[in-house]
Amino acid sequence: MNNRMHQAMQLARMLDGQTSPNPSVGCVITKHGKVFGFGAHRFAGGPHAEVEALNMAGEAARGADLYVTLEPCNHHGKTPPCTEAILAAGIKRVFVATEDRHAIVAGQGIKRLRDAGLTVEVGLLEDEAVRFYTPFWQSLKRNRPNVTVKVAQSLNGIVTTGEQRFITSLAAREAGRELRATHDAILVGSETVLVDDPALTLRTEAGPEPIRIVVDRRGRLPETAQIFRDGLNTTYWLTEQPRVSAQSNVTALVGTYATPEQILETLYAQGIHSVLIEGGPTIQSAFLEADLVDRLEVYQAPSVLKGMPGLASAVEIEDRFDLTAVAPIGQDVHLRYARKGDGSCSQD
Amino acid sequence: MNNRMHQAMQLARMLDGQTSPNPSVGCVITKHGKVFGFGAHRFAGGPHAEVEALNMAGEAARGADLYVTLEPCNHHGKTPPCTEAILAAGIKRVFVATEDRHAIVAGQGIKRLRDAGLTVEVGLLEDEAVRFYTPFWQSLKRNRPNVTVKVAQSLNGIVTTGEQRFITSLAAREAGRELRATHDAILVGSETVLVDDPALTLRTEAGPEPIRIVVDRRGRLPETAQIFRDGLNTTYWLTEQPRVSAQSNVTALVGTYATPEQILETLYAQGIHSVLIEGGPTIQSAFLEADLVDRLEVYQAPSVLKGMPGLASAVEIEDRFDLTAVAPIGQDVHLRYARKGDGSCSQD
Repeated sequence: MNNRMHQAMQLARMLDGQTSPNPSVGCVITKHGKVFGFGAHRFAGGPHAEVEALNMAGEAARGADLYVTLEPCNHHGKTPPCTEAILAAGIKRVFVATEDRHAIVAGQGIKRLRDAGLTVEVGLLEDEAVRFYTPFWQSLKRNRPNVTVKVAQSLNGIVTTGEQRFITSLAAREAGRELRATHDAILVGSETVLVDDPALTLRTEAGPEPIRIVVDRRGRLPETAQIFRDGLNTTYWLTEQPRVSAQSNVTALVGTYATPEQILETLYAQGIHSVLIEGGPTIQSAFLEADLVDRLEVYQAPSVLKGMPGLASAVEIEDRFDLTAVAPIGQDVHLRYARKGDGSCSQD
Repeated sequence: MNNRMHQAMQLARMLDGQTSPNPSVGCVITKHGKVFGFGAHRFAGGPHAEVEALNMAGEAARGADLYVTLEPCNHHGKTPPCTEAILAAGIKRVFVATEDRHAIVAGQGIKRLRDAGLTVEVGLLEDEAVRFYTPFWQSLKRNRPNVTVKVAQSLNGIVTTGEQRFITSLAAREAGRELRATHDAILVGSETVLVDDPALTLRTEAGPEPIRIVVDRRGRLPETAQIFRDGLNTTYWLTEQPRVSAQSNVTALVGTYATPEQILETLYAQGIHSVLIEGGPTIQSAFLEADLVDRLEVYQAPSVLKGMPGLASAVEIEDRFDLTAVAPIGQDVHLRYARKGDGSCSQD
């Protein structure tokens, strides 16, 4: 049975990062030891994992076992409740990796199935599932996206060469791109765009492309910035004074962005549940000072560069974060700091 | 890209053991780094992995990349050729883990796609795919099922206590059940049924239940044998003199079974590509003498029992087999011997 739940988790992981604001869920339907259906939720508004697997199994679902990584929903969202689909299909036993701690679901799905007479077992591979879903639950509980700060710096804390030259190694930069793939959005300040003019894309086939967000309160960015004109991923332009005429893939979100709270509020309203803040030091410090950072990913090169340290030294983080990873990556060192008490954040 | 092929391999492994006589294949369709479709071949006669994934992706397949663990077929079998479905859907690039060495396909699928102007890359995770598909290709090349002999014996080679008492430990017996799950069929001689009356089922939810085969030339088995009356898995009754009235799940295959070749010919004609011979010593020795065994799986308990050694000592195997695994399992020792030159057989 663990074997089947493991396969359902593989399906959930396959779609991880492209189902926001929903969690990624996998489902496997078996009877007499054979797989008759499998599915995963692929995109918000699309069929849930259970429904996809039930459709595939068809009549074979009658009397079958259903393995699902997260408690089935019992409420009408963009799609009808999965519990009703499971009951209508005649599933006999349901194995759930973990109860959904999201308030709308929270045990209601399991209760509905049990009340209808189904055997429901909860807790198969639960530890793995809880680690997988914790960021999703946290974001909902806090009513804001999960925030990761990424820093690529020299040994003495310099974060930019000002010469379009990379500080860290190729291996560290590849890890950085993978980090992007696991977030709904990448956020930078206007200074980063003015100095580096980055594309903020993944440029790989490895995962979904995150939304690009630039905070540009005074609307000083030129229309020629890559993220405005390259026609690639969606760009959200957070500004108080819109001045450039946006391209079709650029959405101006006009509002007041004096505080990190205001920025996160706007992002959350857009359905963004995780954001990677890539720079620069000013915006990163502001989020750290406001205690709105859940994770720090630091890539530190073995170089000593001239200049001023990147992160404002006034922000003390040691009492709020645990060092959860230290490892060499290429010539560099990778450090991960996770907010104390966040179980999931020690995970990749 | 390896990432996506790895996911396609996970899908193929999920269905492994239930697609015979076809190989198990997985497929993932991506565009802009997102998964739009995924599929696996679930049962012979059902849709191929590519078709399932294309149906799921729908219009999104246009301009997308398709990852498939085995070269798409270009011939009309029980379903139309996958190459035509791929072309009709407007897929742009195809990544194939390995060319299909099966003569009907053998490069034709790749050629068809390239001739039509698609970019086709072959060889992503090829080593893994070749190991996975080698037993399938071997069976087709030899026109017979792959044959594994399983022996559970005492230190001095005794294979039965004659008292319905197990020789090996629980751990070894569980490994033996997993071994059953990776074969299309389990074969025993009539003596084993008369002495032990085994069920020859998996009794787990872990995998597909294999077909049960009993060789009973003289038709001396009673109707009361478990494999005839339990109504569980399909039983093929290979006999020259049918006498019992078979249950609905028992198929009498009447023929001449004087040699192992004749037995394998009948099984292959039934679409069986892998058979696990569980006993007894007479039938196992016959297959070894005829050089029709590809793998030996030996579970050896730390006990010395009275009686005669199980495998006829006249059969010398050391010049034909390599010892490819030696490991403790519970209190017992597991030994694996694979036919020399069979690349795949060192794998679990």
